[in-house]
Amino acid sequence: MLFNFNINESYFAEINYIYTLLSKKIFKIMNTVELIAKKRDGVPLTENEIIYLVDRFTKGKIPGYQFSSLLMAIYLKGMRTEETAALTLAMLNSGIVVDLSSIKGAKVDKHSTGGVGDKTSLILAPIVAAAGINVPMISGRGLGHTGGTLDKLESIPGFKTNLNLQQYKSIIKKCGAVLIGQTSKIAPADKLIYSLRDVTATIESIPLITGSIMSKKLAEGIDGLVLDVKTGSGAFMRELKDARALAQSLINTAKAFDKKVLAIITDMNQPLGNYIGNWLEVYESVKVLQGEIVDDLVTISLNLSGAMIYLGGKAKSIEEGIAISKKMISSGKAFDKFLEISKLQGGDISYLTNLDKYPKSKYSEKITAQKPGYLKQINNYKIGMASLELGAGRKTMEDVIDPKAGIIFHPKIGTKINKGDVIAELYTDKKNSLKLSKKMILDSLTFSDSKVRKAKLIKEIIS
Amino acid sequence: MLFNFNINESYFAEINYIYTLLSKKIFKIMNTVELIAKKRDGVPLTENEIIYLVDRFTKGKIPGYQFSSLLMAIYLKGMRTEETAALTLAMLNSGIVVDLSSIKGAKVDKHSTGGVGDKTSLILAPIVAAAGINVPMISGRGLGHTGGTLDKLESIPGFKTNLNLQQYKSIIKKCGAVLIGQTSKIAPADKLIYSLRDVTATIESIPLITGSIMSKKLAEGIDGLVLDVKTGSGAFMRELKDARALAQSLINTAKAFDKKVLAIITDMNQPLGNYIGNWLEVYESVKVLQGEIVDDLVTISLNLSGAMIYLGGKAKSIEEGIAISKKMISSGKAFDKFLEISKLQGGDISYLTNLDKYPKSKYSEKITAQKPGYLKQINNYKIGMASLELGAGRKTMEDVIDPKAGIIFHPKIGTKINKGDVIAELYTDKKNSLKLSKKMILDSLTFSDSKVRKAKLIKEIIS
Repeated sequence: MLFNFNINESYFAEINYIYTLLSKKIFKIMNTVELIAKKRDGVPLTENEIIYLVDRFTKGKIPGYQFSSLLMAIYLKGMRTEETAALTLAMLNSGIVVDLSSIKGAKVDKHSTGGVGDKTSLILAPIVAAAGINVPMISGRGLGHTGGTLDKLESIPGFKTNLNLQQYKSIIKKCGAVLIGQTSKIAPADKLIYSLRDVTATIESIPLITGSIMSKKLAEGIDGLVLDVKTGSGAFMRELKDARALAQSLINTAKAFDKKVLAIITDMNQPLGNYIGNWLEVYESVKVLQGEIVDDLVTISLNLSGAMIYLGGKAKSIEEGIAISKKMISSGKAFDKFLEISKLQGGDISYLTNLDKYPKSKYSEKITAQKPGYLKQINNYKIGMASLELGAGRKTMEDVIDPKAGIIFHPKIGTKINKGDVIAELYTDKKNSLKLSKKMILDSLTFSDSKVRKAKLIKEIIS
Repeated sequence: MLFNFNINESYFAEINYIYTLLSKKIFKIMNTVELIAKKRDGVPLTENEIIYLVDRFTKGKIPGYQFSSLLMAIYLKGMRTEETAALTLAMLNSGIVVDLSSIKGAKVDKHSTGGVGDKTSLILAPIVAAAGINVPMISGRGLGHTGGTLDKLESIPGFKTNLNLQQYKSIIKKCGAVLIGQTSKIAPADKLIYSLRDVTATIESIPLITGSIMSKKLAEGIDGLVLDVKTGSGAFMRELKDARALAQSLINTAKAFDKKVLAIITDMNQPLGNYIGNWLEVYESVKVLQGEIVDDLVTISLNLSGAMIYLGGKAKSIEEGIAISKKMISSGKAFDKFLEISKLQGGDISYLTNLDKYPKSKYSEKITAQKPGYLKQINNYKIGMASLELGAGRKTMEDVIDPKAGIIFHPKIGTKINKGDVIAELYTDKKNSLKLSKKMILDSLTFSDSKVRKAKLIKEIIS
């Protein structure tokens, strides 16, 4: 046995990979500096060259100072579709690829590029699983202005996300959905490359983002993937054209791996839903799953779940998928599925069936409108940062999150606000943070005397 | 005393530099990743930012993987004149700046971008010093296809180039010229940055080359600098436009430091002179200084010495400087100066006054023409590599040079060659190298049946 795997079916990927490398004898003939120069000069790298570079870097044979100059060259010169696919393949094959072929039915996941108040995973995973499609999700943690699915789930007392791949497989077999954290066995190259990108100003590169996202998603063992690419002031891609370019790159790569794929470009110029903060977002998700809330969050969640059901083959269109999703909510099946998943992952579901049981923040404050007007614009990034300030987020990966902390943000762009209306409620255990957070929220808002058009939630669907 | 200097006058530079950094408190407020991102996005960096980056990298506070991504961003986005000057300043101030103000008269050096058979330093230093101008030269070693002044001088038995700055100053005081090697006290940042550029495909960048050259030259304590920027098949800058751009960048930077400067773009499509190899080049230089040779080497050497005499204020034009140079040769003063310098640097001048005393290579071979024709083109890079093969050069800095080895290459572009004419003579102690070297030389030559125009030696003079 060459490697110590948890999942037997995953041998083949590594072994096939090693065979590819050895059989092509690419290790001996390549010169790292020449490959960097090639990319620097805008000449596309071959699949073997990219595999060589990623493999050697991951194994510590190419030093960081060489790989980072390559990353900058990739950042500035870009990559063709085939290069991005090769990068994804190399990163994917740095770890194991989970084989879910023994589990019946389609396996469809969703990936979001992240935003403020984006809790759609918590809503759509139970909906789609209730509709008979497996949802194998490996998610990330929050950093900076955006939250992370894992942190939200872990705000449920007892809920465990650091499961191994054996448990991952076992839970999805039992209930059709599972939400776990990144493990070192999945695409370890991504972690190494991301750490280097983080300190070398090479994060915002479409091929590098694509490789990072897709290597992890493809390792999950999925058949299909719905992409929620966010655009606007709270998104990574502020401009629609950049979001579109990223969506297209992700789609091209998914297709290169023969996956069913579809991207929805959605608005992130304001918080999604009204609750921002880990438990606050679980709270809102439960309300949605119980059918009590119908708003922008629901629209986007159902479009995503509808698309997943469509890709999973249980609907002939996204619209039919949305209709099925609505049924899953109204019938109570979606919420039941959420309870089932939570229980299987160790969560104390009494907090979900009795939301008032959850502990409250020590301090809270209401922000009220000083004068009437229409809400015209939100610097959504700042809203996310205000939430972080209250304790709901992390500045660095070492920071500890307060699951109770956060913001309930009431208005939407276009909302008519009267003097004295409550704009937002802040929750925190850090009294000192209230002042700065309040200022950040107020600074982030622009009002207008005249009527303002509502934001378009779904910008584009690309497939 | 903060630093252990050999030269008292050099304190001021370091102290002034430290004061600049501290007074501006730039260390605390800068974020390396943001600075990399700025350059990546094509936004010019400020002087303080560049000083910060170079200073921190040199002191080991910024890791190589960050600095190399910056280098790639500089390579691909370039630098403005002020940025290049700031880079040069930062690199210059990483070490000590020699103060030669106590030495009377102008101090003028020459820098060449290097080529095959380029021994002009050995010729012009004594000429210019004989003309009453100080020539403080800190030179490099040969690597790859080009030779280095230090290796050539060291082929003279006893000649020492690893002198410290105290000795450097003392010799120039005595005889008006000195030729020493790079010391770790001069621009240590350059050595560090160059090592990183070497392995990250960021060598061929005009601002980075400029910083590397100028930081070392400005540290010599000069008032003026003549640049010999070579172009052609044996030069670093193969294209005239690239040579011109480098020349302009070097000139701009020298001017930013209030130095007198002038660049001559010269031809490097064929070896300069006929002798290639360390002692062979000393031999040819002595012959030139004795007035026995008049050819392309002499033309270029005298243009450079003429320009140096002009910049040093002893002539009203380059032409007048050339006339003075010729007098220095015909009067014997230049050769006497060469003997004086050599003696002061430990050289056994009996080898210079009696050239036949020098040991001979164990093996030699003549390459003769197989058919008549006009020499049309030379791959001069290959000629340099053939010389390296014979033992005259280094593949890596650890290689040991054979001072006797090399090539006497007879024809020039345009020369009419008859069948049986000797094209080149090879000298080596490594018998096995003759075959490959011969093949390389023959492969590097292109002949024509019709007449070929001679190469233009001086392409442009820029000031």
